[in-house]
Amino acid sequence: MEIQFREGISEVIATTRNDQPNAAPIGIINRSFLYALIYKDSHTFLNVKKNRELVANFVLDPLLYVKTAFDDLDSSFFRSDQEAPVLAAAYAWVEFECTIQEGQNQKSAIVKLLPVRSVILQRPILPINRAFNAVLEATIHATRYRTLKNPEYLERVARYESIVKKCGGRQELEAFQLLKERLA
Amino acid sequence: MEIQFREGISEVIATTRNDQPNAAPIGIINRSFLYALIYKDSHTFLNVKKNRELVANFVLDPLLYVKTAFDDLDSSFFRSDQEAPVLAAAYAWVEFECTIQEGQNQKSAIVKLLPVRSVILQRPILPINRAFNAVLEATIHATRYRTLKNPEYLERVARYESIVKKCGGRQELEAFQLLKERLA
Repeated sequence: MEIQFREGISEVIATTRNDQPNAAPIGIINRSFLYALIYKDSHTFLNVKKNRELVANFVLDPLLYVKTAFDDLDSSFFRSDQEAPVLAAAYAWVEFECTIQEGQNQKSAIVKLLPVRSVILQRPILPINRAFNAVLEATIHATRYRTLKNPEYLERVARYESIVKKCGGRQELEAFQLLKERLA
Repeated sequence: MEIQFREGISEVIATTRNDQPNAAPIGIINRSFLYALIYKDSHTFLNVKKNRELVANFVLDPLLYVKTAFDDLDSSFFRSDQEAPVLAAAYAWVEFECTIQEGQNQKSAIVKLLPVRSVILQRPILPINRAFNAVLEATIHATRYRTLKNPEYLERVARYESIVKKCGGRQELEAFQLLKERLA
């Protein structure tokens, strides 16, 4: 097991499959064991329930966090050379065997994650970019807005725009633009 | 030149030296060329002015961002086997030759950065952790509070605490604790 999940929550893109592969941002929680809290009405949960498989993808482009939070990815976004569903853009990934623990609450389930395979294609040196992080935070607030319709979440999204403009590159600007379009 | 700075601003820890080595968080700006905006009354600027040398350190522990924003590091935090000032905790670093361009404004100078050497000791796979990012954001607001004394910055610091507690590991919790102590 070469990829270590840090204590706390790691933000990755989860890929699962049924007939079609699916991708969605997810938090991998490491608190003495690895698990995720997954909404029961999500594609991710339905797929995990069906075949107990989930892949954590590590990607560089913030656009993919926005895209997978709001859109369904077509099959061109996935690798065709892997049995498991893996993003073509992933520079590394971890395949998990899942055990669903009912409980938590009516809306979400605890899904325990047992790593069975990790693949590292590249090891990029990644300087910290506040705009990348701002895109992720804004995406989280945007998805909460979509579910809860509380306008406070929209105001929080707007707050991140100045960081994206000041600190971001082309990728962060594009990702934030897509986020605004999905909220419009 | 093996380490690529992404377009936009990369948050690193800058080390410089005079008689003593100094360390402080800094943004390396890549907008067609590499530069930094550095406060003229900072140790970093005085050191750069003296010997035109600055090292960008890549570190994993968020505590170092808080510590170098508020405290002077003693010599045990620096490598003794390098001519340039380098943090012992750095998993990679880039040494720059600096050219000071007066201008910008009275308080800060544009310092152009020419990479002359980069060293990669490790290539860790780094899952994104919102708490790590929250510590950095809170540190930025805390240093603004220290300079400008506007209590709004303190409120922003407080907002990040819930993310640190929810998503962080031991390192992020320790770093945020230190930040609160420095603001007390």
